[in-house]
Amino acid sequence: MNIKALVFDAYGTLLDVHSVVALCEKLFPGKGTALSQLWRARQLEYTWLRSLMGRYEDFSQVTADALRYACGTLDLKLESSHVLQLMDAYDRLTPFPDALEAMPQLTQYRRVILSNGSQAMLNAAVKHAGFTAHLDAILSVDLIKIYKPDPRVYQLAVSHLSIVKAEIGFVSSNYWDAAGAKSFGFKVFWINRSGALPDALGAVPDAVLGRLTELPALITSPN
Amino acid sequence: MNIKALVFDAYGTLLDVHSVVALCEKLFPGKGTALSQLWRARQLEYTWLRSLMGRYEDFSQVTADALRYACGTLDLKLESSHVLQLMDAYDRLTPFPDALEAMPQLTQYRRVILSNGSQAMLNAAVKHAGFTAHLDAILSVDLIKIYKPDPRVYQLAVSHLSIVKAEIGFVSSNYWDAAGAKSFGFKVFWINRSGALPDALGAVPDAVLGRLTELPALITSPN
Repeated sequence: MNIKALVFDAYGTLLDVHSVVALCEKLFPGKGTALSQLWRARQLEYTWLRSLMGRYEDFSQVTADALRYACGTLDLKLESSHVLQLMDAYDRLTPFPDALEAMPQLTQYRRVILSNGSQAMLNAAVKHAGFTAHLDAILSVDLIKIYKPDPRVYQLAVSHLSIVKAEIGFVSSNYWDAAGAKSFGFKVFWINRSGALPDALGAVPDAVLGRLTELPALITSPN
Repeated sequence: MNIKALVFDAYGTLLDVHSVVALCEKLFPGKGTALSQLWRARQLEYTWLRSLMGRYEDFSQVTADALRYACGTLDLKLESSHVLQLMDAYDRLTPFPDALEAMPQLTQYRRVILSNGSQAMLNAAVKHAGFTAHLDAILSVDLIKIYKPDPRVYQLAVSHLSIVKAEIGFVSSNYWDAAGAKSFGFKVFWINRSGALPDALGAVPDAVLGRLTELPALITSPN
């Protein structure tokens, strides 16, 4: 494949957002999984809705807002110390093992992160997870104050890399993000670790991989 | 209140989208509620994501796509006859009793529907539910091919009514729609039948009502 650079999504793709379950469970026994799931779902909804409404707030604000909503809906009493602990956990998310394993095999490509996260959140989480040495840049939507899958977000990576879209490989585990990137014009690799079904969004990724470790062989192949 | 016209959301506000549960349950015993909930959640997500991606398809397409996704994810075998039956059920959604009761008490206001629905779906469902005589117009986002809560959708109602935003009362049970309408500039009434928590979207409705039957007295009050 004629790929010159790789653009990675961060949350859910390199970093396991559900690694906060352990702390959720410790703070709210028996409710950790439900809290983590509702928190993540609302976090994403808020990014989409705020983008459509033209009312951007950065990802740390949206993430904290979604946490408060999720706790309220699940009838969990959220102390301010809990908010600090859980938001801090977002800066120390566990990397996916297959992402850690794949990165050293992709050194021939320019590699950047393009994420909804705020710059501070991303810098902290990427460093903690051990990806820093493998990245040329960490690009945050905060530069333009709109969230994925608005095409202006994907343009950020093109502008940074100065490479044509079709020669940029985009990697995400979030199907809607993969679809947005494909709709924009990238070569797209959907990392489907959980065996999820594709959504019907009018754009289909170029390849579906079960693990990020499948990527190096695939993109160095001639086709 | 100085309200000259009322703009109603349709799905979830006048029409109970979860009245399809009975048919879902009949077709997929034990899974009716789960199917109805996942179907609705994905239907909304697809409208937001397609709007952000600039890949509009009309609401009947999005609704059928979301149905297929929900059945696939829940491992339910969806026959083409099921799709026809379930989509047909969307044209015959049950009206909320409080909505039917309130409408005859609001005859002094110009009343329109502003909905994500396609014109054909809306016309059928509104007629079946018995709201036709109470409405001056049924406005579909299909005219501009973008979904709520993009502000251009709410502008459709202003353009149709030729009344300033602040004198238009907007009524929705969907909090994100109420927030979008408030962000746009309407006077907004959130009908919160289920005791849901408000989301953090940067705009707060002017009033929260448990039932639509509370609206007539509220808007004829001097304040």
